[in-house]
Order: sequence, then structure tokens, then C-alpha cells
Amino acid sequence: MRRLISLLTDFGLTDSFVAEMKAVIFSISENVQVVDISHQVEKFDISMGAFLLNGAVEYFPDGTIHVAVVDPGVGSNRRGIVVETERAVFVGPDNGLMIPAARSQKILHVYELTNRSFMRNEISATFHGRDIFAPVAAHLANGKLPKEFGHEVLDFVDSPFPSAKIEGKYWVSEVVYVDGFGNIVTNLSRDLLKNSLSEKISLYVGGRQFSIRFVRTYSDLRVGEVGALFGSHGFLELACREKSAAARLRVNRGVPVRLLRNS
Amino acid sequence: MRRLISLLTDFGLTDSFVAEMKAVIFSISENVQVVDISHQVEKFDISMGAFLLNGAVEYFPDGTIHVAVVDPGVGSNRRGIVVETERAVFVGPDNGLMIPAARSQKILHVYELTNRSFMRNEISATFHGRDIFAPVAAHLANGKLPKEFGHEVLDFVDSPFPSAKIEGKYWVSEVVYVDGFGNIVTNLSRDLLKNSLSEKISLYVGGRQFSIRFVRTYSDLRVGEVGALFGSHGFLELACREKSAAARLRVNRGVPVRLLRNS
Amino acid sequence: MRRLISLLTDFGLTDSFVAEMKAVIFSISENVQVVDISHQVEKFDISMGAFLLNGAVEYFPDGTIHVAVVDPGVGSNRRGIVVETERAVFVGPDNGLMIPAARSQKILHVYELTNRSFMRNEISATFHGRDIFAPVAAHLANGKLPKEFGHEVLDFVDSPFPSAKIEGKYWVSEVVYVDGFGNIVTNLSRDLLKNSLSEKISLYVGGRQFSIRFVRTYSDLRVGEVGALFGSHGFLELACREKSAAARLRVNRGVPVRLLRNS
Repeated sequence: MRRLISLLTDFGLTDSFVAEMKAVIFSISENVQVVDISHQVEKFDISMGAFLLNGAVEYFPDGTIHVAVVDPGVGSNRRGIVVETERAVFVGPDNGLMIPAARSQKILHVYELTNRSFMRNEISATFHGRDIFAPVAAHLANGKLPKEFGHEVLDFVDSPFPSAKIEGKYWVSEVVYVDGFGNIVTNLSRDLLKNSLSEKISLYVGGRQFSIRFVRTYSDLRVGEVGALFGSHGFLELACREKSAAARLRVNRGVPVRLLRNS
Repeated sequence: MRRLISLLTDFGLTDSFVAEMKAVIFSISENVQVVDISHQVEKFDISMGAFLLNGAVEYFPDGTIHVAVVDPGVGSNRRGIVVETERAVFVGPDNGLMIPAARSQKILHVYELTNRSFMRNEISATFHGRDIFAPVAAHLANGKLPKEFGHEVLDFVDSPFPSAKIEGKYWVSEVVYVDGFGNIVTNLSRDLLKNSLSEKISLYVGGRQFSIRFVRTYSDLRVGEVGALFGSHGFLELACREKSAAARLRVNRGVPVRLLRNS
Repeated sequence: MRRLISLLTDFGLTDSFVAEMKAVIFSISENVQVVDISHQVEKFDISMGAFLLNGAVEYFPDGTIHVAVVDPGVGSNRRGIVVETERAVFVGPDNGLMIPAARSQKILHVYELTNRSFMRNEISATFHGRDIFAPVAAHLANGKLPKEFGHEVLDFVDSPFPSAKIEGKYWVSEVVYVDGFGNIVTNLSRDLLKNSLSEKISLYVGGRQFSIRFVRTYSDLRVGEVGALFGSHGFLELACREKSAAARLRVNRGVPVRLLRNS
């Protein structure tokens, strides 16, 4: 059976880094299919990488091997880890990057990558994606078990995400992502809000107050109207039909969002 | 036999949208090869998407399944369709996007996508590429027939393209694309012009008159010279050797082009 | 056995050019895996393409077929060639692009592409990547031998790279690449410098003098500190931890670098 390997990095698509990882994978394992999640994570932005990975993994089949490399600490004493969940395996640096996605599938075990026999002979100090994580993923695809790569660790670095929380009349949240369409994604999930929003909602975004319509899909808005809806990953987002809401509201990632709870 | 699935979207390469479509496809069908045509169509630009798809499909083998998603009306009452042609199958929104490419292969039947059993259980209001079109393509790759997905429709939305036409002494045309090299592509095809152009041609581009050489390939031009030639998809284009003709002439898509017929 | 085909071009990811090459490859050969090295080589920049290809090929398995197209002379009388090395085969224009990478694996034979039976029936004057190089690669993947494509040539165009050399007290070198992280890569290899640098090195970059630390990896630097290290391809590079050294020093490709030898 062909195994799927997903890749997420901040390497961009101009340099040959991603190709080198794939070349290493295909040198070790014949029967894999590689799917790029994104290589355009902002450089060193663990939180953005974690958000993208977390949104994508649900759609992959059981048994997928997810390799994620946003790794400002490469070559230092930060550990490399394999995270085994109920549905998949994650390979990458121990810096929180993979934890939200792994938690969404229930983490079973985390192992530190110490077994040198599954790494490239020569390990550079600057590119563990190619020299450690890619070969580990290929050996996993060949049937090696996560526990063969090193000893179990319990003190792995946790999620880089803030959680939304209630403060008085408000849901206190923040902008965790702005997608390519300019939709402003918050960390207020449909589950959290229990899917209960009225037709008109009231919120503060970066200190400014807005009263906007809560709709089902983009085309329920008039062209140019800013509204709110649950996006395809189940988070509340602010959108502007056929325009960039982020440009319209001049909002970036990290900006606080307060949502009036009875709205 | 391994089936090919092509993907064309306006999703960009930063977000995980394209990866989610691939993850869904590989969850349903083992024996497919996915080829990305482009994910950098300008957001919501059906005409640009139609141009790129139309240029590419000729080179794919018979039996390819082309999935195209430039979809400002997602979640509204616009239909999803499967278009069966003599050589391939197209899956996407009913907004004209796939029609020029499909027509180039002779359209046999168009079916509305209504059979829920070939879609994801949960269908978001904002991402039919992942929840409807991707699984439909995977089921087609598994051998399902286009007619199994819904009833035939005859009133599908037609091509977004203008046709070039004769007005007096002129071919009246327009810039339908500017490629990454800055070549200015018109909708004047080699077939239309019957391949008969003299060595010097005269044309108005955006109101300004040019008299330029008609050549066979870019390297027939001097570095920096603007000339005309038939590009690799058979359309007349204005090119500037090793430079961007579009930047040189400050021309964008949509600009009218009038070509003197006896030139 | 599945063969690997790598692709490197200056076609970008917006146009459908790369997809057309893949479509042609998959039309001819079922049993191949395609890996994109980069399609974002600067337009017509043979030297940049040669650098990226040269850095990547080491990691591919034996028998890989590398297709490279940065081709300002397309359609002119520049030749197309197949380069057979001890480990792989290269297909592309005879303009030096593939030679550094091929030399790194020892060149055995170079053949001009003249056998029309391995090209597309209709060959455009502007896109040999699709009409010649892609089908040649697919036929190689199907088991054809390099010598079947044309006669041997000895006078192929050589490498576009300058070599670093000694002048008095200095290594005279230049910036051959700036990667996506802003790391400034020189053509001073670890082999050339015999791995012997002291903790503090002195160099002139673009005429300005710097005395910086030589370290093992990025995280040995303080955030914002500019230092030197051997990058993942074995070349000396100037880096700035979690920042762009190129932006900091305002340095581009081609800028001369002089390194004090006893440093």
C-alpha cells in the first residue's frame, strides 16, 4: 500500500531545499506519494506553520506521515521528535509546530529522534529537514515503527497557540491567520461558540468596533460588504466578498478580537 | 492503469487549500497522479483561469480528469458540473471556467453534480473544491461514469472569452493574457489568421500604433526589440527579447489590439 | 522500477508551462515520479539555474533524469543535449546550465538531440521544454539509452560559474547566490578552504571590510548578528540569525568577496 507523506516548511519555492527533502525520501522509499501542504510559511513563524498544518491534517487518510520544518533552532540542542497519534505520525523539530495538529488526532506517544541509523550519514548543522526528518519519514513509510527512532519523551514543547477565552460579556480572541483571499481567521471555533450566533454580531477588532452580518457563505454578502462566517476549517472569520477583508480593515495576524457574547 | 487528475485554482500556494483537495483525492483513489496546472490564477478571475486551462489541456493524455476551481459563487445556487468531452472529463463550477478547454475537445455531455454519495459527508459552504469537486474527481478516477453524478444540463454557462473579429481593414482583438516572461498574448490564433503574416506588421495596441517585425522565435529579435510571433499555444503574441514586452509597452490584460489585415 | 525525473526551469508557477511538460512526460511514461527542483529561477539567468541544479543533484538517487530549461536561445541554432554522467542523465539546452551539476558526477558522454522520433510531432519555435526535452526525458525513463538520441559532441558550452582563486593574502570569490532566508552564498567551498577557518574571519564584501565570527550553525549567532558558516551545500555563506544577511549588508549576487587567507 502506498503511504502518503505531507510536507510543510518555511523554505519557499525558489531554493532547492524542498526538492532535496523529496530526493532523500524517494531514495529510501519507492512506494510513497508526497503532498506539499505549504512551503510559504513566513520564515521562522512557528505559529503560522502550526495553524496551516492543523487546518490540513483532518483531510489526509489514516497512516499519513506529516513532516513539518519551521526550525529557527536547527543545529542547536533543540530535539527532533516523532509524534504518534491515533491517525497519523508527525516528524519535525520539538518546538510546538506539530502539536496543535497532533492533538486534534489525540497524541499517543512522542519519541526523541536519536537513532542515527535512520538519518543521513552526514548531517549538516543547518538543514535537518533533509538530513534527519526526510529520511526518518521515508523509513516510517517503509514500515519502521515510531518507537524504533528513539526513547519516549513527555516534556515536549507545547502548542504556540493562544486559546480564546471568556472575559465578562466578551469572547477574547485574536487573529491567528489571514488567508490568501484576505479572509481574517480568528481562533473562535464553531465548537467553542456552539454554532450560536445571531444575524448581526458586534465585535472589536484592534480596538475599533464593528457591527456586521453573520452569514453562511461569501456570496451571501454584497460585493464589498464585510461580514462574518465560519470558514472551511470551522473558525469564525471576517470576510469581504471578492475583496480582501484584511486590506479593508488593515488587520494583521496577532490583532486582538473581542466578540460580544450575546451577539 | 493510473489516471491523471489536473488541478487549476486561484487558491495560491501559501494556504493549505490545494493540499486539502489532494488529501481528499488520495483518500478515495490510490491509483492517480495529480498535476498542478496553476494555483496562481488571479483571485476570482474566471477568464484568466479559462485561458490557462484551455492552453494546457491539449498536452494531457486521453482520459485525464481536469478539476478547475475559480469560484466566486461558492455556496450560492450556482451549480457544480461534470463536462464529458471526447478526450477528457472536467469537474468544477458552472461559471464558464472550463468551457473553452472543453470545447477544444468537443463537449459530449454536461451533468449537474447532485449525487451526494460522491461528495464528502460534511459540505462546507465555502470550499466546494475540497468537499465536492475533489471527491468527484477521485470517484471518476476510480471508474465511475460522468452520468452517475447527476442529470444532464443543456443551459450551462458559456465561455468567458471574447472572440477576435474582422472590422473593415482590421482584425479586432484583445490582450487575453500576459505570461510570466511579459509576453503579451492576443486572441488572434494562427488558425484564424491562416498563418499568413508579412515580415512587418502594423497594429494598434491600446490606441498607440506600432509597426513591428513578425518573426518565428524570440531569439530572432535583437535584445530589447519588440516583435510579434505565434507563441507555443498558437496565439499571436507581442514579445521583447529577454525583456518584458508588457512592461515595455505598459499593457495589461483586456487592452484592445487592432491588427491591420493586409499587414 | 519507477524512475525519477527532476525539473528545473525559469517558467514560474503561474503559467501552465511546467504542467505542459509534466503532461507530455506522463503521456509517454507511466512509471515515473517527477520532482520540481525550482521553477523560480530568474528569467534567462543560466548562472542561477546552474547553481540551484548543482546544489540539488547530490541528493537524488542513481538513475535520476534531470531536465533543466533556462533557455534564452530557444528556437535559435543552440543545440539540445543529453549529458550522461556516472550517476544520472541531464537533458536541456547546450548553454552551460547543466554542466556544473553534471561535472560533480563525472561526465561520461554528451550527445546532441537530433533524433526526431523522440520529440513531439509538432515542435514550436518557442517551447522546447515541452516539445523536445520533456519527451526525451520520458523516453529515457522508458529505458532508451542516451546514445540513441543523437551523435556525441565534445565542444559543449561549459559552466557559467567563476572559480574562486588565491590572490596574495586573499581568497578572491564572489556571491553566487542569495537564498530565500537572505543567506549570502559564496563560491568558497569547504573542500577549497580545507575546512580551516579560525573563530574570527576578516573579509571584504563589495569593498567594505567585515570582521565576523565563523560558527557552525545559525543558532550559534545572536539574533541579528552577522556571521559566517558552511551552508548545507558546503559553501561559505554569510548569515544573520533569523534575519536576512543580504538585506542587512545590501548585497546581491555577483558582488565580489575577498577573504583574508590567514583568517
